[in-house]
Amino acid sequence: MTKIGIGIIGGGYMGKAHSVAMAAVSGVFETKLRPSLEMIAASSDASAARYAQAFGFAASTGDWRELVAAPQVEAIVIASPQETHREIAKAAFARGLPVFCEKPLGASIDDAKAMVAAAEASGCPNMIGFNYVRTPATQFARQLIAEGEIGDLVWVRGEHTEDFYADPAAPASWRTDGKANGTMGDLSPHMINAALALAGPIETVNAQIDTVHATRGGVPVTNDDQAQMMCKFANGASGHLFFSRVAHGRKMGYAYEITGTKGAIRFDQEDQNAIWLYCAEGPEATRGFTKILTGPAHPDYLPFCQGPGHGTGYQDQIIIEAKDFLTAIETGEAVWPTFADGLAVSEVIEAAHLSHETRAWVDVHRA
Amino acid sequence: MTKIGIGIIGGGYMGKAHSVAMAAVSGVFETKLRPSLEMIAASSDASAARYAQAFGFAASTGDWRELVAAPQVEAIVIASPQETHREIAKAAFARGLPVFCEKPLGASIDDAKAMVAAAEASGCPNMIGFNYVRTPATQFARQLIAEGEIGDLVWVRGEHTEDFYADPAAPASWRTDGKANGTMGDLSPHMINAALALAGPIETVNAQIDTVHATRGGVPVTNDDQAQMMCKFANGASGHLFFSRVAHGRKMGYAYEITGTKGAIRFDQEDQNAIWLYCAEGPEATRGFTKILTGPAHPDYLPFCQGPGHGTGYQDQIIIEAKDFLTAIETGEAVWPTFADGLAVSEVIEAAHLSHETRAWVDVHRA
Amino acid sequence: MTKIGIGIIGGGYMGKAHSVAMAAVSGVFETKLRPSLEMIAASSDASAARYAQAFGFAASTGDWRELVAAPQVEAIVIASPQETHREIAKAAFARGLPVFCEKPLGASIDDAKAMVAAAEASGCPNMIGFNYVRTPATQFARQLIAEGEIGDLVWVRGEHTEDFYADPAAPASWRTDGKANGTMGDLSPHMINAALALAGPIETVNAQIDTVHATRGGVPVTNDDQAQMMCKFANGASGHLFFSRVAHGRKMGYAYEITGTKGAIRFDQEDQNAIWLYCAEGPEATRGFTKILTGPAHPDYLPFCQGPGHGTGYQDQIIIEAKDFLTAIETGEAVWPTFADGLAVSEVIEAAHLSHETRAWVDVHRA
Amino acid sequence: MTKIGIGIIGGGYMGKAHSVAMAAVSGVFETKLRPSLEMIAASSDASAARYAQAFGFAASTGDWRELVAAPQVEAIVIASPQETHREIAKAAFARGLPVFCEKPLGASIDDAKAMVAAAEASGCPNMIGFNYVRTPATQFARQLIAEGEIGDLVWVRGEHTEDFYADPAAPASWRTDGKANGTMGDLSPHMINAALALAGPIETVNAQIDTVHATRGGVPVTNDDQAQMMCKFANGASGHLFFSRVAHGRKMGYAYEITGTKGAIRFDQEDQNAIWLYCAEGPEATRGFTKILTGPAHPDYLPFCQGPGHGTGYQDQIIIEAKDFLTAIETGEAVWPTFADGLAVSEVIEAAHLSHETRAWVDVHRA
Repeated sequence: MTKIGIGIIGGGYMGKAHSVAMAAVSGVFETKLRPSLEMIAASSDASAARYAQAFGFAASTGDWRELVAAPQVEAIVIASPQETHREIAKAAFARGLPVFCEKPLGASIDDAKAMVAAAEASGCPNMIGFNYVRTPATQFARQLIAEGEIGDLVWVRGEHTEDFYADPAAPASWRTDGKANGTMGDLSPHMINAALALAGPIETVNAQIDTVHATRGGVPVTNDDQAQMMCKFANGASGHLFFSRVAHGRKMGYAYEITGTKGAIRFDQEDQNAIWLYCAEGPEATRGFTKILTGPAHPDYLPFCQGPGHGTGYQDQIIIEAKDFLTAIETGEAVWPTFADGLAVSEVIEAAHLSHETRAWVDVHRA
Repeated sequence: MTKIGIGIIGGGYMGKAHSVAMAAVSGVFETKLRPSLEMIAASSDASAARYAQAFGFAASTGDWRELVAAPQVEAIVIASPQETHREIAKAAFARGLPVFCEKPLGASIDDAKAMVAAAEASGCPNMIGFNYVRTPATQFARQLIAEGEIGDLVWVRGEHTEDFYADPAAPASWRTDGKANGTMGDLSPHMINAALALAGPIETVNAQIDTVHATRGGVPVTNDDQAQMMCKFANGASGHLFFSRVAHGRKMGYAYEITGTKGAIRFDQEDQNAIWLYCAEGPEATRGFTKILTGPAHPDYLPFCQGPGHGTGYQDQIIIEAKDFLTAIETGEAVWPTFADGLAVSEVIEAAHLSHETRAWVDVHRA
Repeated sequence: MTKIGIGIIGGGYMGKAHSVAMAAVSGVFETKLRPSLEMIAASSDASAARYAQAFGFAASTGDWRELVAAPQVEAIVIASPQETHREIAKAAFARGLPVFCEKPLGASIDDAKAMVAAAEASGCPNMIGFNYVRTPATQFARQLIAEGEIGDLVWVRGEHTEDFYADPAAPASWRTDGKANGTMGDLSPHMINAALALAGPIETVNAQIDTVHATRGGVPVTNDDQAQMMCKFANGASGHLFFSRVAHGRKMGYAYEITGTKGAIRFDQEDQNAIWLYCAEGPEATRGFTKILTGPAHPDYLPFCQGPGHGTGYQDQIIIEAKDFLTAIETGEAVWPTFADGLAVSEVIEAAHLSHETRAWVDVHRA
Repeated sequence: MTKIGIGIIGGGYMGKAHSVAMAAVSGVFETKLRPSLEMIAASSDASAARYAQAFGFAASTGDWRELVAAPQVEAIVIASPQETHREIAKAAFARGLPVFCEKPLGASIDDAKAMVAAAEASGCPNMIGFNYVRTPATQFARQLIAEGEIGDLVWVRGEHTEDFYADPAAPASWRTDGKANGTMGDLSPHMINAALALAGPIETVNAQIDTVHATRGGVPVTNDDQAQMMCKFANGASGHLFFSRVAHGRKMGYAYEITGTKGAIRFDQEDQNAIWLYCAEGPEATRGFTKILTGPAHPDYLPFCQGPGHGTGYQDQIIIEAKDFLTAIETGEAVWPTFADGLAVSEVIEAAHLSHETRAWVDVHRA
């Protein structure tokens, strides 16, 4: 195993998740590259030092530029606020470093385009963190569809719904301010990425975007609580995507139902170890949706969990991401999803906003 | 118990269901009026005679006019093809007979309007047969929402999906010909009725209507296989409705999820004895969707089934309709849903077609 | 269709269910014999008259002997208290009448033996009313097992659990008095019958029988609240059966899981339209329990419910029983389950009581 | 954070799991003690070196004695074959080291007793690895029961069922040889531990133990494929436990249903992020089992997974164990489950074997 020096920028929720993942990944997957936690950067020297201590980094800094420049850092993970993604990624690519960037790619579609351009110019491995699509269940769904197991797609329904703002009495916060922090900015990327991954490019969309609660505690809410869009895929399938942060009862409603000419697939992240498959084969009397529990027969099932049903969790998704990022670095080949995939998601979001304004269908690539 | 003479027009699927229901209803619910199966009409004397024998009618006829005119017939059930509904209903109202009409109200919105006008002019009891909304579960959902149990509605998702035409190799038939027999004509009325019943009037819609399989066995398909619509309700809620006859794996996918500011409700007709309720009350640690099995505590639960979990079935829905129709006759008061409710459904459908053509949002009442 | 005069003894819960079923069965299944509701008997002239009026019988009587003797009565249904079953059945067989008897066969194993003997001596069609086993789902399970679809049976787990006496504050009643009204007497027969039907004869049992609440409102409880038994089947499978009337949350917990050498089956009456099947076939990655919704492809699915997922309910089970009883009368051939099947259930119950007393395994046929 | 040197004995499945857990735990839970992976021992120098490289240990050895003696090792995890547990634990306690031992405690009840004695004599922190009981769901179940949320317990049903030997054609292996490797030895400890943890001591048992497939590929099978036991708990509840390695379709069937006088709880490890709770409170019409998704409101929910529904997996259970072991070391207080709890499990197993032989009920403490 070859050591590789890892620098992580950001020590919050996702910074922590990636730190743990980098510490665990080689034990879990026995990767060729073994991460060495070299440096963590945060918004101040003090917080960075605290993160380094908690997560086991050798060094820390309050200035991400120092991290990007440090010779012992050979690959970086960006888990800082989205406004900082662009500048950090450009600096890292300029130094020739592989970059893993948390979603969204940047704070705007311009950021996203610039980051893709920088990645391509550098030729460095690059990935984006759509972690939910990493479950063995969803990866298996993608494989089933790609192999034609459910035939040509006819219908795609997806949602990413949670209820963290369902209580009308919940106070305003940074989450209720600014386009990027609303439901379209925060939750929709995950499911749009899944839709693209599972069903291919979206050509046209027709969206409606709602601010359900106009104020919270007297403070105006400047972004959206829920949004929906009808869409047409390049393969001819129709679809519907829904996003909500006010969906009472939904804790991790990352769910989809996909119907083809030969069968159908259903999934709900709230039971993330199961994937439901209907195949229109065999006697009518024994047809139905089969509840498949993911296990060693499915993609990226953690080797620890030798038997099916052992269960993957949220942290496991991040470990799988770490494994794939290491593979991209080792082989130099693109490992899905790249920055370009992140940009494709942003384009759909842009088109949806335009559609909402015009109250009509909009072409994604005209947007 | 007072005897009431029943005439049923149509001996097919729904004619049979209503015949059985009329024979059973007084045993089940101990109604004040006891149906007497006086006459059944069908398209020929021979088939009518066969139906009379099978279902236990005293007389039969190949001419519905004879049935409507028969003095012993005191109330009628229309279960004949939709093209015939208008003329039969008008004749029955002209004779002062209460009329129960299977959905859809007529073959066109003009039919529906004319039938409502005739019903109102006559002052006779009138009902329309949206049977699925009759389950104790859905009636309980309606009651919960009306009583504010889940607060102000925020989101309504409904679908009526089946897979009887999911096989691309299934041959063309009368079902694949003519607007009234497509998914919008055949399946959408049930769920649009449910949406109106549960969430109130729909103000604007934005629809997309697909013919997934343009030909079947070389024969052109002239109507739609699936359709979706985004909608805004008068109460401010947003919604999405989906209808499909090509939804592999869905056998009776009459399902909805309704979210309010205080909770949420979920239902799927494939498990029609359960209703799922989430209330944002009590400690966070014990919150979740509660799976409620319908029983004596719920509306219209069949008295036979004294305990919860005994289970209602399809035929039971028709028996509940029969009970309500008898009540309307006995009391002279309108019992929901009336012909006017059927017309409201037709108006939404019209607006959806117009929206599909214009690829933009359409007001329901401008349609 | 040939008319057949039906007499029903008992107008309570099950008497009502059978009355409605007899009124409906020929419409539903288009039977060769058409029931004519000739007479109903109850404990007094007045209540019998009231039942006749409610359920549509031509005549009524407070004396079951009058009913059994009436020439227009050609077949009878016994739905009176279990203490009366033996005498009524014997009288009916003596007159050469086909008899359908509600479970349990009698009030004791002696009753059951005497009734089987009388039935056999008469040569008359005879059936016993284990209605839950009549769902299309359970009949399909039986067929799957019989055809070897899940291989040789290895394990059988069954339960019949309800919660009607789960509240410790619920007062004593006739249900808490007398062996026949306890859980072993009241609930166990249904699931023991299912176990025998699905897995064949039981050879040995080892039971534990509990009175959980010794008194209710100060009144001693003289029978059991819950009971369990381990058992060995003649085919070598092991099993466990559990019965409870104090199972909070269980409304109709008639449920089983059966494992064989090639697969497994799961069922729960609380979702009576679904049967879950696991077949150890095909690629590991697509194996799982398939949730099959009963429909036209399954045994005894009501013709009304042309598509799968329409749903059968409690009353439908009784209609299926009526259809089978009419078939037995028409063909003269035994239709399962006969009185002999009811006796087999009683024998297991006897052995379980003996096992409980001895705290050890007991042979069923030594009991 | 204080560093603590960890030695792990065994590099197979569980050794790997504990290695990853020790590397991750301080990032996840921000423990006061931070593990330092000092040495790993395996059956040979070569394999130990390979494990050290893969899992990130500073040193390795083919002799566990060297590890126990190494001054930099301050606490040990035993994940070697069960025959070795006793000797290793005794040596570690002799050196005053805290010991975490994988289940089962030893290869026999004598081993277990000796290990408990050694632990108590040393006064060192000691724990045993019943990982499944560590899910937030099961810990919450335990808390609910302890707080009386479902009242006095009446019924406890548990199972641990898998299908890794369900195929009769699967060849014989070490798993099919020797009492300790059969279902009672391998699977039953997990669920017996859960039963004791949830419902308290078991007083008497009545068991049946089956070798379903007497030979595999012509080789005799010397241990059991499935087993069941009826039991009585000290608190008066009755129960049933079932264990199987031939349960087709069950991948991680660690499941229980527990009923009390005020409610009930249901859990299935195949959906390990959900716990179902029924409370007999409030209006009848809204009662039902509530599906609670574990989240921050529940015990030991991983801090990473800030929102409910993010999901814990198998590896997360081991991380929780690591956190608790570190707490035991830090505080010097016993953290459940200790070696004594492991011994209690072994005593139930012993009594079950004796009961099977005598075909009657056996007292656990007489065993």
